[in-house]
Amino acid sequence: MSEIKKKYESVHYTDYLQLKKVLDAQHLRSPEHGEAAHDEMLFIIIHQVYELWFKEVIHDLSSIMEMFRNDNVDENNIGTAVHRLNRITEILQVLVKQIDVLETITPLDFLDFRNYLFPASGFQSFQFRKVEVALGLKEKYRETYNNIPYATVFSEQESKELHDLENADSMLQLIEKWLERTPFLHRNDFLFLEAYKKAVDNMLDKERQAIDATDYLTAAEKQMRMNMLGSTDTFFASVLDENKHNEMLNKGALKLSYKATLGALFINLYRDEPILQMPFQLLSKLVDIDELLTTWRYRHAQMVLRIIGRKIGTGGSSGFDYLLNTAIKHHIFFDLHNISTLMIPRSELPVLPDHLKKQLSFYFTTGNK
Amino acid sequence: MSEIKKKYESVHYTDYLQLKKVLDAQHLRSPEHGEAAHDEMLFIIIHQVYELWFKEVIHDLSSIMEMFRNDNVDENNIGTAVHRLNRITEILQVLVKQIDVLETITPLDFLDFRNYLFPASGFQSFQFRKVEVALGLKEKYRETYNNIPYATVFSEQESKELHDLENADSMLQLIEKWLERTPFLHRNDFLFLEAYKKAVDNMLDKERQAIDATDYLTAAEKQMRMNMLGSTDTFFASVLDENKHNEMLNKGALKLSYKATLGALFINLYRDEPILQMPFQLLSKLVDIDELLTTWRYRHAQMVLRIIGRKIGTGGSSGFDYLLNTAIKHHIFFDLHNISTLMIPRSELPVLPDHLKKQLSFYFTTGNK
Amino acid sequence: MSEIKKKYESVHYTDYLQLKKVLDAQHLRSPEHGEAAHDEMLFIIIHQVYELWFKEVIHDLSSIMEMFRNDNVDENNIGTAVHRLNRITEILQVLVKQIDVLETITPLDFLDFRNYLFPASGFQSFQFRKVEVALGLKEKYRETYNNIPYATVFSEQESKELHDLENADSMLQLIEKWLERTPFLHRNDFLFLEAYKKAVDNMLDKERQAIDATDYLTAAEKQMRMNMLGSTDTFFASVLDENKHNEMLNKGALKLSYKATLGALFINLYRDEPILQMPFQLLSKLVDIDELLTTWRYRHAQMVLRIIGRKIGTGGSSGFDYLLNTAIKHHIFFDLHNISTLMIPRSELPVLPDHLKKQLSFYFTTGNK
Amino acid sequence: MSEIKKKYESVHYTDYLQLKKVLDAQHLRSPEHGEAAHDEMLFIIIHQVYELWFKEVIHDLSSIMEMFRNDNVDENNIGTAVHRLNRITEILQVLVKQIDVLETITPLDFLDFRNYLFPASGFQSFQFRKVEVALGLKEKYRETYNNIPYATVFSEQESKELHDLENADSMLQLIEKWLERTPFLHRNDFLFLEAYKKAVDNMLDKERQAIDATDYLTAAEKQMRMNMLGSTDTFFASVLDENKHNEMLNKGALKLSYKATLGALFINLYRDEPILQMPFQLLSKLVDIDELLTTWRYRHAQMVLRIIGRKIGTGGSSGFDYLLNTAIKHHIFFDLHNISTLMIPRSELPVLPDHLKKQLSFYFTTGNK
Repeated sequence: MSEIKKKYESVHYTDYLQLKKVLDAQHLRSPEHGEAAHDEMLFIIIHQVYELWFKEVIHDLSSIMEMFRNDNVDENNIGTAVHRLNRITEILQVLVKQIDVLETITPLDFLDFRNYLFPASGFQSFQFRKVEVALGLKEKYRETYNNIPYATVFSEQESKELHDLENADSMLQLIEKWLERTPFLHRNDFLFLEAYKKAVDNMLDKERQAIDATDYLTAAEKQMRMNMLGSTDTFFASVLDENKHNEMLNKGALKLSYKATLGALFINLYRDEPILQMPFQLLSKLVDIDELLTTWRYRHAQMVLRIIGRKIGTGGSSGFDYLLNTAIKHHIFFDLHNISTLMIPRSELPVLPDHLKKQLSFYFTTGNK
Repeated sequence: MSEIKKKYESVHYTDYLQLKKVLDAQHLRSPEHGEAAHDEMLFIIIHQVYELWFKEVIHDLSSIMEMFRNDNVDENNIGTAVHRLNRITEILQVLVKQIDVLETITPLDFLDFRNYLFPASGFQSFQFRKVEVALGLKEKYRETYNNIPYATVFSEQESKELHDLENADSMLQLIEKWLERTPFLHRNDFLFLEAYKKAVDNMLDKERQAIDATDYLTAAEKQMRMNMLGSTDTFFASVLDENKHNEMLNKGALKLSYKATLGALFINLYRDEPILQMPFQLLSKLVDIDELLTTWRYRHAQMVLRIIGRKIGTGGSSGFDYLLNTAIKHHIFFDLHNISTLMIPRSELPVLPDHLKKQLSFYFTTGNK
Repeated sequence: MSEIKKKYESVHYTDYLQLKKVLDAQHLRSPEHGEAAHDEMLFIIIHQVYELWFKEVIHDLSSIMEMFRNDNVDENNIGTAVHRLNRITEILQVLVKQIDVLETITPLDFLDFRNYLFPASGFQSFQFRKVEVALGLKEKYRETYNNIPYATVFSEQESKELHDLENADSMLQLIEKWLERTPFLHRNDFLFLEAYKKAVDNMLDKERQAIDATDYLTAAEKQMRMNMLGSTDTFFASVLDENKHNEMLNKGALKLSYKATLGALFINLYRDEPILQMPFQLLSKLVDIDELLTTWRYRHAQMVLRIIGRKIGTGGSSGFDYLLNTAIKHHIFFDLHNISTLMIPRSELPVLPDHLKKQLSFYFTTGNK
Repeated sequence: MSEIKKKYESVHYTDYLQLKKVLDAQHLRSPEHGEAAHDEMLFIIIHQVYELWFKEVIHDLSSIMEMFRNDNVDENNIGTAVHRLNRITEILQVLVKQIDVLETITPLDFLDFRNYLFPASGFQSFQFRKVEVALGLKEKYRETYNNIPYATVFSEQESKELHDLENADSMLQLIEKWLERTPFLHRNDFLFLEAYKKAVDNMLDKERQAIDATDYLTAAEKQMRMNMLGSTDTFFASVLDENKHNEMLNKGALKLSYKATLGALFINLYRDEPILQMPFQLLSKLVDIDELLTTWRYRHAQMVLRIIGRKIGTGGSSGFDYLLNTAIKHHIFFDLHNISTLMIPRSELPVLPDHLKKQLSFYFTTGNK
């Protein structure tokens, strides 16, 4: 296409979508090696559909990551970022729903062509790996299969591309840096951490005294109530103590830096302030994506169990057990989930000083017209 | 590919799925004519996904129609036919769900590339027309758009293919013939129509007398109750009278022949008899497909309203109104829906003679071992 | 319950949820009048579930309306309003999904208890009417059934409550007033309507000239392209001319005032500005709700067709046709859908003057620290 | 209600559904102990909805179990059994979908009323336990929480009811007995197990020879192919050897008896024979239910993680970890899943002798008219 296309030239649906190519890319292997297996068509088509969706997810995700690569994320972009993350959640819902279609291939029908596929397997999906790596799944946290590095099934070039992607900032890291830049935490008129710490202490004290003062709880009941508070206490401790947090980081039990965690906590607690409304949605959407991904992985594992049982899968993988483990372990935004552990009731929230409240508002509504 | 592929040769996921082709078929027009529009990628991909699914639907539907082309449908195939119809319903559910993704393209974003698409439109989807025609939508019943025959947007060869498909037996016609062959309607020991007629009469009589005998209903309430019965009566009449049925056929108000309607009625009423259990499921699945298709059409119309409003659509179509009308008019198995109007309560069902019951059972369970 | 409950007193799940009451509210009529019909249980339970969800929808909707009743809607509330509208969309999705369950009652099974229900029908759902009225469905726009006012099936008190609700501001009216207060439309440094009008003219001119200048379009093709522009033109006209708009209001073809329409248009066009990001979401969620409601109505109609055919329904209603018409006519936020017709490409958007851009931003990001 | 209700007496929707009771069963605790928490309403309503659905599931499940309690399951009932199992899958899909609604309660909002609920928790849902026990979850296979027997949270009477249910035949056991009665396994003209064993041997031999004979596989590739076969071999072994099967039963690795497993295998392999079409569907629906239940449990666990983090939950439970384990361990029809491991390709299926084929057909189609 050496010259610019003519803008008003008519274009036909079939050409625009390159349907001749797309609809001619289903080459069944079963008719060549034996009898044509009816369901091989579905098997091919559904995987092509998955790959098309992965391409779109990568397209959206990359555009969002681009927005966050700058040290000053343009506030005008946040709406679009949230919108595209939301699109990804809609796509993931379709991906989950599609498993219902895949499961219409019964074990007996799958055997009609399974032998011809070896070792092709989803394990070899380059795009899916890209999605995982771009979101923030590092190799050291991966469930391995037979101790084989996940990138060995790819070409040298693809392998390099994944490697480079691992070394660049992932979505998780970009968000971490963005959270670390939250500007409202240390101010002359408001020290967020101090205020939060005090609020937590107050809250726990009040609860302890109130429980103690009841005349309708038995000693055992009181103790149980106290224990519940205590355990919560432990969780709060890690936020209040930077060293403990860093220990957990080193052990791999946490992934977000101390500073980023404080930023996320602030956003979650004061989410109603105008400047934090969209950031709160942004964090929520990342958690949505994580949740949908783990649901997809879990359903995928169940589907494999159903269709091929615990046989060694195409690709030599043991299928079910490996996939089940990835569902459980490959959480990416787990730390954002954990923020919920650190919430305190609205009634206990430290009141923000007027000037800070103003800064969290719109220019227009603060009276600056 | 002149020689047989080597059966045990390894095949890679990427090659098997021809991903190089499939993932290289997204050619955005916006970057050539102006600025790249982010959402054009989604627009292309989702339509390609729709087309891939249409290919699978055609694949499944054709295989089922093949089974019904024979005058003696092999009973061993009915399970598979039901299974594949069910697969089609699962796919249609995904197609409906995908509209949620498409709707993430906002009106403003669509404008960024809408101009470059003219006159490409879903109106030009050859495969979708094939699905409609194969199911049984005849041209004379189609909602037309600007009075243009639907096939004019296709190549001569495609046009001919659609024409031939129209002239061959559709799924609806194959089912009609199959229903007409229902063997249990006219027998020495059981005349289904007579028995049904008598049961309907009895039922209506009993109801009328019972209503009349109440002492707690006012005259007006009695009349209302009577009216309700009467109206039901009218519906029953068309089944009991072949001439009336044929009149409605001629007017296009019905599509299934009198004989086929009786067959469908018999299956619905005696669906618990072993030999009718799968046929009942088969009819139900066809109604499911009809319902999902009309739902998809309706949601599609709403989506068009949302994204392009009532502007003239790409392709010159007025979009919303045309699509809304297709949702309402393009029912294919409407007559099977209507069967519900002819049901009578189980308690009124004519008892089947022993020998007929035996014939509706399994060889094994009748004591023939 | 005369005194305050003890805060730390243990409460059991069963008591908290009042399950003894809730799970003892399924009184089947079939066993009293004839044989127990297995599916009557589902029929009762699913309708109770619907009513419980309606209660929640009313609870959420009322809380949002409360926020908008004030002339100065607190910006801190908008996030919550969007969140709760989103919850309503999630609930509506469940309501749509539940129709799949309801459709497992086959026509034959429904007949086992249908007679005992007369004239009970969804037509008598007080809460559903409340949802409709609260959203903004006025009686004069209602599809009537047998010309009977919809409120006649309710008690005097309920009837009055609906009447009062009709006379109070609905969600639609509250949004209209809120939109009318959009403060950025008439300013010394920016007259939105003028700027928009000019942009539209420019855009159409440019298109016309460009089409005319092509050497690869035939005269007919040029004419078609011109016609498409023209028709769009007509739509734009009503926004640019207050009198035309008011005429359409009088005819009932539009519902939002001229001023509110301009506000909605401004929000949609400049949705990326920080202060408009949440309002844009708010409008989108209202459209989502409208779309889900019409989908639910449409599926509901199809379900009635399937289970009782075109018989007169329980409640004396002709069911299918009435319900189908409500799906099509009972759109509430149709005008917001129509906004899409008025969009212009981002490239044509009038640039906002600096001071206005500042006013649409956060206090903090404008450099006011 | 001492006398028979009047059949034609009008009944109002509100009365029929006992809405006064149902809609008056939402008693929020938050307003009594502090400020009214908006989301407590949703929390109560959604759990009531869950319980209503559980009631329906129990209603359907019980009716199916009743059918299978007889030693001669009436073939006319199988269609209804499949239909009701399918209904349960539709309900379970709604239950999964509802989690999306529940997740609109954010961690911060939940804290507004969480303290008032202690120790109420889903752990105390009597009906859910009934569903689990009726399906076949025995106490010894349960994930325990803090080593507390699950029934301790119930009243004495409820506890006894659960105990009795555990001791009666569960759905799993009823199906096991039904499968054990499969009549076609040991016949003069056909010994299923022998035939199957021979087919497996043949198949594996053929594969081994074919792999060995290739000239394009390296020694390592051949070995890998051989290993894959070998491992499959091991799985087949347990079916072919009754003692090995019984060992696994004793270890709890399997739950279905040897005989029942053979029955299920036969049904899966010869599912196209008319008499096996519905039994095949029945087994598939049970697997569907298992899969939906585990999906629901998994999503439930993720939701708890999201809303309350890893805090000790209401009810004192550690929530997430406990729930995650139940998702993985509380499979009920796992053995039916495993059948897929024992499938052999259709091309290898032992041919059934004519008389047996006849017995698997309908009386009518065998020529006995």
